[in-house]
Amino acid sequence: MRTIHVLNGPNLNLLGTREPGIYGSKTLKDIEADLQAIATREGVTLVFKQTNFEGGLVTHIHEAGEVGADVILNAAAYTHTSVAVRDAIKAAKVRAIEVHLSNVHAREEFRHHSYIAPVAVGVIAGFGANSYVLALRALLDMGPAA
Amino acid sequence: MRTIHVLNGPNLNLLGTREPGIYGSKTLKDIEADLQAIATREGVTLVFKQTNFEGGLVTHIHEAGEVGADVILNAAAYTHTSVAVRDAIKAAKVRAIEVHLSNVHAREEFRHHSYIAPVAVGVIAGFGANSYVLALRALLDMGPAA
Amino acid sequence: MRTIHVLNGPNLNLLGTREPGIYGSKTLKDIEADLQAIATREGVTLVFKQTNFEGGLVTHIHEAGEVGADVILNAAAYTHTSVAVRDAIKAAKVRAIEVHLSNVHAREEFRHHSYIAPVAVGVIAGFGANSYVLALRALLDMGPAA
Amino acid sequence: MRTIHVLNGPNLNLLGTREPGIYGSKTLKDIEADLQAIATREGVTLVFKQTNFEGGLVTHIHEAGEVGADVILNAAAYTHTSVAVRDAIKAAKVRAIEVHLSNVHAREEFRHHSYIAPVAVGVIAGFGANSYVLALRALLDMGPAA
Amino acid sequence: MRTIHVLNGPNLNLLGTREPGIYGSKTLKDIEADLQAIATREGVTLVFKQTNFEGGLVTHIHEAGEVGADVILNAAAYTHTSVAVRDAIKAAKVRAIEVHLSNVHAREEFRHHSYIAPVAVGVIAGFGANSYVLALRALLDMGPAA
Amino acid sequence: MRTIHVLNGPNLNLLGTREPGIYGSKTLKDIEADLQAIATREGVTLVFKQTNFEGGLVTHIHEAGEVGADVILNAAAYTHTSVAVRDAIKAAKVRAIEVHLSNVHAREEFRHHSYIAPVAVGVIAGFGANSYVLALRALLDMGPAA
Amino acid sequence: MRTIHVLNGPNLNLLGTREPGIYGSKTLKDIEADLQAIATREGVTLVFKQTNFEGGLVTHIHEAGEVGADVILNAAAYTHTSVAVRDAIKAAKVRAIEVHLSNVHAREEFRHHSYIAPVAVGVIAGFGANSYVLALRALLDMGPAA
Amino acid sequence: MRTIHVLNGPNLNLLGTREPGIYGSKTLKDIEADLQAIATREGVTLVFKQTNFEGGLVTHIHEAGEVGADVILNAAAYTHTSVAVRDAIKAAKVRAIEVHLSNVHAREEFRHHSYIAPVAVGVIAGFGANSYVLALRALLDMGPAA
Amino acid sequence: MRTIHVLNGPNLNLLGTREPGIYGSKTLKDIEADLQAIATREGVTLVFKQTNFEGGLVTHIHEAGEVGADVILNAAAYTHTSVAVRDAIKAAKVRAIEVHLSNVHAREEFRHHSYIAPVAVGVIAGFGANSYVLALRALLDMGPAA
Amino acid sequence: MRTIHVLNGPNLNLLGTREPGIYGSKTLKDIEADLQAIATREGVTLVFKQTNFEGGLVTHIHEAGEVGADVILNAAAYTHTSVAVRDAIKAAKVRAIEVHLSNVHAREEFRHHSYIAPVAVGVIAGFGANSYVLALRALLDMGPAA
Amino acid sequence: MRTIHVLNGPNLNLLGTREPGIYGSKTLKDIEADLQAIATREGVTLVFKQTNFEGGLVTHIHEAGEVGADVILNAAAYTHTSVAVRDAIKAAKVRAIEVHLSNVHAREEFRHHSYIAPVAVGVIAGFGANSYVLALRALLDMGPAA
Amino acid sequence: MRTIHVLNGPNLNLLGTREPGIYGSKTLKDIEADLQAIATREGVTLVFKQTNFEGGLVTHIHEAGEVGADVILNAAAYTHTSVAVRDAIKAAKVRAIEVHLSNVHAREEFRHHSYIAPVAVGVIAGFGANSYVLALRALLDMGPAA
Repeated sequence: MRTIHVLNGPNLNLLGTREPGIYGSKTLKDIEADLQAIATREGVTLVFKQTNFEGGLVTHIHEAGEVGADVILNAAAYTHTSVAVRDAIKAAKVRAIEVHLSNVHAREEFRHHSYIAPVAVGVIAGFGANSYVLALRALLDMGPAA
Repeated sequence: MRTIHVLNGPNLNLLGTREPGIYGSKTLKDIEADLQAIATREGVTLVFKQTNFEGGLVTHIHEAGEVGADVILNAAAYTHTSVAVRDAIKAAKVRAIEVHLSNVHAREEFRHHSYIAPVAVGVIAGFGANSYVLALRALLDMGPAA
Repeated sequence: MRTIHVLNGPNLNLLGTREPGIYGSKTLKDIEADLQAIATREGVTLVFKQTNFEGGLVTHIHEAGEVGADVILNAAAYTHTSVAVRDAIKAAKVRAIEVHLSNVHAREEFRHHSYIAPVAVGVIAGFGANSYVLALRALLDMGPAA
Repeated sequence: MRTIHVLNGPNLNLLGTREPGIYGSKTLKDIEADLQAIATREGVTLVFKQTNFEGGLVTHIHEAGEVGADVILNAAAYTHTSVAVRDAIKAAKVRAIEVHLSNVHAREEFRHHSYIAPVAVGVIAGFGANSYVLALRALLDMGPAA
Repeated sequence: MRTIHVLNGPNLNLLGTREPGIYGSKTLKDIEADLQAIATREGVTLVFKQTNFEGGLVTHIHEAGEVGADVILNAAAYTHTSVAVRDAIKAAKVRAIEVHLSNVHAREEFRHHSYIAPVAVGVIAGFGANSYVLALRALLDMGPAA
Repeated sequence: MRTIHVLNGPNLNLLGTREPGIYGSKTLKDIEADLQAIATREGVTLVFKQTNFEGGLVTHIHEAGEVGADVILNAAAYTHTSVAVRDAIKAAKVRAIEVHLSNVHAREEFRHHSYIAPVAVGVIAGFGANSYVLALRALLDMGPAA
Repeated sequence: MRTIHVLNGPNLNLLGTREPGIYGSKTLKDIEADLQAIATREGVTLVFKQTNFEGGLVTHIHEAGEVGADVILNAAAYTHTSVAVRDAIKAAKVRAIEVHLSNVHAREEFRHHSYIAPVAVGVIAGFGANSYVLALRALLDMGPAA
Repeated sequence: MRTIHVLNGPNLNLLGTREPGIYGSKTLKDIEADLQAIATREGVTLVFKQTNFEGGLVTHIHEAGEVGADVILNAAAYTHTSVAVRDAIKAAKVRAIEVHLSNVHAREEFRHHSYIAPVAVGVIAGFGANSYVLALRALLDMGPAA
Repeated sequence: MRTIHVLNGPNLNLLGTREPGIYGSKTLKDIEADLQAIATREGVTLVFKQTNFEGGLVTHIHEAGEVGADVILNAAAYTHTSVAVRDAIKAAKVRAIEVHLSNVHAREEFRHHSYIAPVAVGVIAGFGANSYVLALRALLDMGPAA
Repeated sequence: MRTIHVLNGPNLNLLGTREPGIYGSKTLKDIEADLQAIATREGVTLVFKQTNFEGGLVTHIHEAGEVGADVILNAAAYTHTSVAVRDAIKAAKVRAIEVHLSNVHAREEFRHHSYIAPVAVGVIAGFGANSYVLALRALLDMGPAA
Repeated sequence: MRTIHVLNGPNLNLLGTREPGIYGSKTLKDIEADLQAIATREGVTLVFKQTNFEGGLVTHIHEAGEVGADVILNAAAYTHTSVAVRDAIKAAKVRAIEVHLSNVHAREEFRHHSYIAPVAVGVIAGFGANSYVLALRALLDMGPAA
Repeated sequence: MRTIHVLNGPNLNLLGTREPGIYGSKTLKDIEADLQAIATREGVTLVFKQTNFEGGLVTHIHEAGEVGADVILNAAAYTHTSVAVRDAIKAAKVRAIEVHLSNVHAREEFRHHSYIAPVAVGVIAGFGANSYVLALRALLDMGPAA
């Protein structure tokens, strides 16, 4: 059975209460429920993880690689500062889609650069909780990795 | 009936033959057919336009604004160089989603910057022809503009 | 009889409805009427053109040069990105005044640079529709080119 | 009776003899006479001040603010280096128009940046002594501050 | 009873032995004792935490936010590299004062930039252990958050 | 019969009258006559096009690609600003030689960078009208594309 | 008896009326009264000076140096542009604390750099009028210079 | 008995399977065995640690400092982004040699900068697993720290 | 009788006590005496001025221009920040030699740039008080301005 | 009889064996033979020199200047780093054409800048050995220097 | 018999007397003796060359390439400025190890960049004379080139 | 007897004929004669050398160091590009004065930076042949090195 890991980075545990004007009012649990509903219908297994640690995100990506899972990755702040997360995607040979709730390009200059995007399959940003759903659909449309 | 304009910029008329390793083998007609199938099912009207001219893209965005349509916009090369297209989105007050076939962040440095993204709703890049489909789904999920 | 061309660039056709907080509520027609009233009184001929195309603006400048007209030029977005418009002013040997409705220096960083200003006679920015009137007065004060 | 302060910065006391190829042959007295003629006709009071000191310019702007006067400001060299003059405009809550005799954009790179423009109403540059006249007309056209 | 969290980042556990020429000879325990003496007198509760982990600092800030505590934050090296810590302050809606033992502006260029300062209330740097005391006094002077 | 397209960008229609100190006194017609004389002797077909529009240049390159022609390209101002023209060369799979009448490296800084050169076969600049002749000779020496 | 000079730079004479949203509603006189109350209690002499002139600030620092006074310095705009003030601190061998009412790091980019901080003892910014009080406390805690 | 800590950063746990074209096919265990063979012969104790966490690396360096050990440090991605690891070397007063398996200078631009090198004894990069062996030899040649 | 003005900028009044390791132990009075001895022998008049004010330096240069004097100019800190002083040299049409006591190129980066040097005759830096003597000799060798 | 010096810089002695994918398989001797054949037919004298030394290239340019020869110059690596070679062209008053075998604009960033091009007549790059032939033709077309 | 060329660049002939605090007190002869001792034991031939000339270094690399020798290269100052030396390594197809006596990353900014490292096998820096020994060991460990 | 080496870099052998508008009409021989006249009077020995080679300049500086001579150094183009010449001054422990005939700060941007000035005693630029004379006087005034 196909498995997809949904990995979230720092501060996303506060979703729903965190600057709702930017990030929306859905909690991470709400988003996970939305995704699970689709996954159940499509017959794929989802694994949800969240961590505030850069090294935690690296480890989570390794774990996805070990079981051959694709990755939906919202690295949040680490998107802009972490070479380690970038290297993890290459090292673990996972297919990852970079997602963002907010439109990072409409925010501070330092959020316009991503260390991760160049090693990701693609990027989806700006659709709130729906960014995750679109990423899941994209992975489903791509089919499992060869 | 809700209307969505699918606007394409320079060189996209050559899709299918243009560097298929980067852009895939689907033609613009193929993509339009995929989108039309969904639109018919969902009961929305799609309008397709392509132009090699920056001023043409500006004009197409104005036309979308005049009829209150949302926009799926692949500005191609003009993404990186056109303030005029950016201004058109603001001037015409359209909701636009920026799409790219390729993962622009994995290519030349000058493709990492977008003049359009900061005034778009969001960005979807790297999924080939499917980037358009995901953008259409995103607009459908958002519902019509108030 | 002395002739002055009033040339407008991209998105200025939407003036009046376009972000009135920045650009004011006068339409391009309103501005032209204001200018025409002065021109009639002063006995000069005005020619009004607007285009969304960079190449269109280049061509309009050539046309001004062919009839020995001075130019009031609001190149809008192309101010910041167009070497072609700059070259057209030099190539057509026209005297041009760069005008802007808004105070471009109080907006995004990329609007602080002008390719056109170094080859223009001068710059007038920030007075709304009155920027055009001031430019017309400036040209009248300068007298016809030798 | 409405009052407008015409404030000049460093080296403008030498106008007329200073690099006439760039700045023209009119002296500051000549310019003041031109402006006074218009002001008398229009029924506004003009106050003329010149200083070579950055702090002097700051103080002059404060004095304008104290009497509710608008400001025509040629900060000359301080345009490009003075945060203090910029802050004075904000602190004194004056409406200021930035003027330059020469087209600063056609000169050295460091003259292309203005600390003042972003807090001014607008900018008029390149028309020699007439830049001041145009600024006065612009202020008259705007009417007194509310 | 009002609570203030005093959060310390990487390498501050070595205070006292770490480059005493720069950081002074007081240990973190010494600093905590100084602060506790004042807090006892002023009737506020202090919570002290130290971590070498960026994610740990993020989590500590969340914990402060959960109990409505203000924060005295010496993020040390993460001051200059961590978007995650910056986001944590916004996400947790805490009032934070950035403190540094050394005068970071007199050291390497990369220590002159702070990701945290723009979202902090203010910055106190260069007073050795006394920087913390001043920050505590500042928070006491401000009174509890509304 | 082998075909070569000679494509000219903005302002080159004014050649001969445009800043002859920089661009020489030959008109575009003169240059075309020089080239045609050689082409007739060598038995190749030349097609001449000029446009002031970026999108026009993109389209002309597509047309060259459709008939398998090589391209002599003087993109003029668009050399320095157009990603669209660069992409057109790749998309249409044409062999292009970049030519300039003037020595662009001896002029303004912004003329030192070319978006086109990296995807061209080579560059010839600074020989006035003879730059075109040298480019034609270079293409003849290379023989037709395989 | 120990003496501390409280030196204020340009536009601070307008405090209280100057952008109160940023700088607070206390006047410079109010701040001086707050400081004097503490100084009287602590038995130190305070000298207050304010000037809009860069050279004035240089001279004031020299005067502090001549009497062996420490300095609380709010150089305001000159913080970001004045090498002369920086050199004055070194030349006069005074101990200076840099203070700011507002959190300069949360404002325009050019306010993030200080020429003075590297030669100051430390920096206190963002606490409104209380920044001065904290600086005075810091100097009192440090004891008189050896 | 002399002790040397061999500290490895993020993703190095995947060595052998991670991009073998860049990093070689030896695992971290293989490298440790090579080093242990030499250490046994030379009579020094080796301690091996690996962590994906920046804070973990900071802590490991502290632990080396506590026992007076020298350090062979492959900080991997943190080499390029971590001020905390740099500060740890200074704070713990360890002698560290920076090693890299790959020639970082032949890879992406962001891998050319090291925060760690300026506080290390030296750098050895590009020799695959042998980089560690050379570093061990270098430390042996240097003798124990005084 | 030929006249030379020796103009000194900010903080030079403290010479002799100011950082003698960098600037030497001679006072400004000592330097003036050295210069006067040579001037008396050579039959030229020297005028000495010192000011801490940028505007003062501008005015002093104007005064030199009014009497046709050459200038030996140590603008000190204003060398690196003052466009006004640069403009004064051009406006007053004086021949100026830029001098520095210290070797500015061996100090902080911001002292490597001079706004004044490009409009001066030449630069002499690094010889302590002797820099002035060499400048006087250079002016004597050049003879009076035509 | 007219003379043209063909000057080659560092590493060009290895042509033919040096990275033939970039530089082609012709040796420098082969290129010289091609050029000599044309020169003999056209009645001009060619002088061939190659050196790996920057100073050698400077000297060769001087020698060309002494005999009034034009220069075909492939400065190779010194193109990008040598101010001395640039100055030599100006000092010796030679007409030089800059040639490159490869398309330098399609290679590393540091090869995009040329110190020589601004003082050369023009540039020919990207045509392999034929770049030299085109340069010779260009010089023949230009006729001897006046 | 395997041959390794040990090539040294400018100023290394002064080793031992040259800034011994940075470069150590061993002369180049001492280093050569150390290396020769190892080479004799290992049965490889060493060739030692030193030159102050960039072109000399280029030529020495060519000579290594001609006899199929590997290279230990201390290009000293040319490391940071020479494209010619970089190109020589590629042109001559030698395997080179870049060595430095000092830790270049702990020195001036301009020593942090190497033109050579990207085309070398690897880099060893900071171990004084031992850097050469480590490089020789590295080459011995690698075995002769295929 | 005290010895001073006068070392000249590339293209200075052409002095007198080389761009006399910038460099004057005196030849290097003329300058040497001027210097020799002073040296004879003052009882010091001068040694004159000129080379077009960077390595030659390095060697000449070494030779000065070997005999304990001071150096007057006009490195010409190498001033702006040579780390090797800079290192030679440090390595040979010579006292050097950097001289330039022209005012380098009034020329191209790349001539504003000197690698040599930070390790020289001082700089004299812009006085034509007299720059050398002033440098000689400066060395005489300083007395022989201790």
